[in-house]
Amino acid sequence: MLAIGSELLDGRVHESNALFAARAFVDYGLPLAGVSLCDDVESEIIAALDLLVKSSPVVIISGGLGPTTDDLTREAVASYCGVSLYEDADALADIKAIFEKRKRDFNPTNKKQALFPAGAQIIKNPVGTAPGFSIEVERNGKRALLLALPGVPSEFMRMFTESVVPQILRYLGEIEAPDKRIIRTFGLAESEIGGRIEALKLDPSLVISYRAYFPEIQVKVLDPKRSGSLNDAARRIEATLGNDHVFARSFEFSFEEIVYNELRNAKVTLALAESCTGGSIGDLMTNPAGASAVFLGSAVVYSNEAKSALIGVPQELIREHGAVSSQVAEAMARGARKMYGSTIACSVTGIAGPDGGSEANPVGTFYVGLADENETVVFKLFFLSSRKNFKRYVGHLVLDIVRRKVLGISLSPYQRA
Amino acid sequence: MLAIGSELLDGRVHESNALFAARAFVDYGLPLAGVSLCDDVESEIIAALDLLVKSSPVVIISGGLGPTTDDLTREAVASYCGVSLYEDADALADIKAIFEKRKRDFNPTNKKQALFPAGAQIIKNPVGTAPGFSIEVERNGKRALLLALPGVPSEFMRMFTESVVPQILRYLGEIEAPDKRIIRTFGLAESEIGGRIEALKLDPSLVISYRAYFPEIQVKVLDPKRSGSLNDAARRIEATLGNDHVFARSFEFSFEEIVYNELRNAKVTLALAESCTGGSIGDLMTNPAGASAVFLGSAVVYSNEAKSALIGVPQELIREHGAVSSQVAEAMARGARKMYGSTIACSVTGIAGPDGGSEANPVGTFYVGLADENETVVFKLFFLSSRKNFKRYVGHLVLDIVRRKVLGISLSPYQRA
Repeated sequence: MLAIGSELLDGRVHESNALFAARAFVDYGLPLAGVSLCDDVESEIIAALDLLVKSSPVVIISGGLGPTTDDLTREAVASYCGVSLYEDADALADIKAIFEKRKRDFNPTNKKQALFPAGAQIIKNPVGTAPGFSIEVERNGKRALLLALPGVPSEFMRMFTESVVPQILRYLGEIEAPDKRIIRTFGLAESEIGGRIEALKLDPSLVISYRAYFPEIQVKVLDPKRSGSLNDAARRIEATLGNDHVFARSFEFSFEEIVYNELRNAKVTLALAESCTGGSIGDLMTNPAGASAVFLGSAVVYSNEAKSALIGVPQELIREHGAVSSQVAEAMARGARKMYGSTIACSVTGIAGPDGGSEANPVGTFYVGLADENETVVFKLFFLSSRKNFKRYVGHLVLDIVRRKVLGISLSPYQRA
Repeated sequence: MLAIGSELLDGRVHESNALFAARAFVDYGLPLAGVSLCDDVESEIIAALDLLVKSSPVVIISGGLGPTTDDLTREAVASYCGVSLYEDADALADIKAIFEKRKRDFNPTNKKQALFPAGAQIIKNPVGTAPGFSIEVERNGKRALLLALPGVPSEFMRMFTESVVPQILRYLGEIEAPDKRIIRTFGLAESEIGGRIEALKLDPSLVISYRAYFPEIQVKVLDPKRSGSLNDAARRIEATLGNDHVFARSFEFSFEEIVYNELRNAKVTLALAESCTGGSIGDLMTNPAGASAVFLGSAVVYSNEAKSALIGVPQELIREHGAVSSQVAEAMARGARKMYGSTIACSVTGIAGPDGGSEANPVGTFYVGLADENETVVFKLFFLSSRKNFKRYVGHLVLDIVRRKVLGISLSPYQRA
């Protein structure tokens, strides 16, 4: 893959289309052979292209298809292929139609976007004005397919997924994505997961990879040889990790959307009382569209006075046990449930750091309360990191407690206070 | 720059060292000429190196310096330079010392990390076991300096900043970072900022660049020719953008840290009442360490009942005007100020979408209330985006209102409801 543009080389933009392409291809057992980033300079584009064509039968080009004078992908590819550029009447009509639809005057500089190397096949752009194109080239006795797409990630991704992947699979022939299983987990460290799966001594023809999407860990199992052992392997992996740590088997929903869906299915409403997390759990719970169906709110009570005024935590309790204590976590969860009138409520009080720890409650300590109509239980937990990572981890942990509660899964991984 | 490693090509890792290097160099007027990512294959490393040496007198290599058999950077560079590898006794002693310090047995495979191409200069690694090295090479009558560093970002960044940048500046000679000014803004679109600055017709020898760090926009002005016009340009840029939109002139503090610092200096405490933002503003306000000195909490009142129960918004008001209304925003701000006992309080109620809009309040509409001891004012605003971007933007806007309030800056950019 070749990504073109000075903004990729001067620190303005972090190139991301190659990562997107790599992730799409790896499921077909087709990792990228190489990636080059180059400036908007015709000779450099051509030199980079030539190197990539040597190592791969397919080269994806991203960027340089805009209307301005420093957009040189069309010219460089035409020159590399030894052909001239022509203006495509249909493409020009499409571009003019976009201007009309957006109620903007057609700018003649955009005529450039209807130019293509002779022999190219046009790739329509359903999102913007820059069409892409593909063209075959022969060099040193090797044939290669070049596919040029706009660099704007939203346009690149859409055209890549809808047009380029199918075209490449047709071009390479007979490639099918191997069967795979996705296992998304929360609550186990990556090294622990890796160790347990290694100990299973699964069929070595299966390809197992891990990805940390903090704080969740995703396991992917590919079966490129169609060994037939995939179902058995997935079952054994889930068993060794503990089914309770596995919260999803696809990427369809985010963790918070899964918790939201479970709450909605169970017709359970949730309220929160947050201290050290500062509102970040409420933030998570309001990511899903329609959150108000299950989430009633969160009392962010950072000060001791607020803990009393908003959710009725007795000041004596705070004086006696401290704001970071099992007793206060319990009173917060109960108070939030009462004030919001929710089915269940969770509370968090702890020490995010970097200062404020004590011997009994070092920085990283936090208490989570969980109240329902019958009882309130409290967990004492620990996670030491930056403030942002602490809040993100604790937020997911609280949602995991909610998930377990709603699904009736054991809460035993979490230590009672 | 050449980044080596299969994990960069199969989607496991998003290469980031090149971005770090680009940002460090651009301040010296030295953007990267090109970047290549290649697999752990000696012939591919050499081919990529050769292309980069053609276009640049300095090539930085990242990765492939680990102890395992697929770490091939030393071998490939030695082969490219036509020299053999030798074992450096001092480097080996350093590596063994690290194992001793970490109380781990020395693993003989790590001896490989003390191998260097003959003639190389060793770059010490203050963080890990893999030293880097630099070596000069001559190809086609052109000389180039190759610098190889480990790919682990924390090691790369430290060695790059401490050793590589000074060495490259010495090698290239007489390059000093040009004077620069940073102007960080909130509340103006990037195109608006660009248009206003262009209209100033500043000294064309100044290099002006923009970076969107959503939702803040950063302007950087470089003076590579030492024209002496930098101070005047910065003053005129701030004047045309409006000093009120400029909230910082360095990267020392984040936006929320700046607001936190202003609140602390003014001895003003803040409370919030959040509806559509779900706690994300409290999350922002608790990013600074020591937030509790100024931030008392946030009543996240997603449901109508919670708006009454926690901060005393009358149900009649909600019934009469709707939860998303100027009247409710006003009552929320007043109620939060009273319940938390804060100096000032801000409220937000709005429609994040994707559903729930009306003709009077389409999706993207939100009201912000600001209460102090004398009065409560309400602003009616609009921002249409994804839920996450909406929350992020609105959170920054509310903090900007707080910043303006505390500093006594006009609130006129925000339309009164």
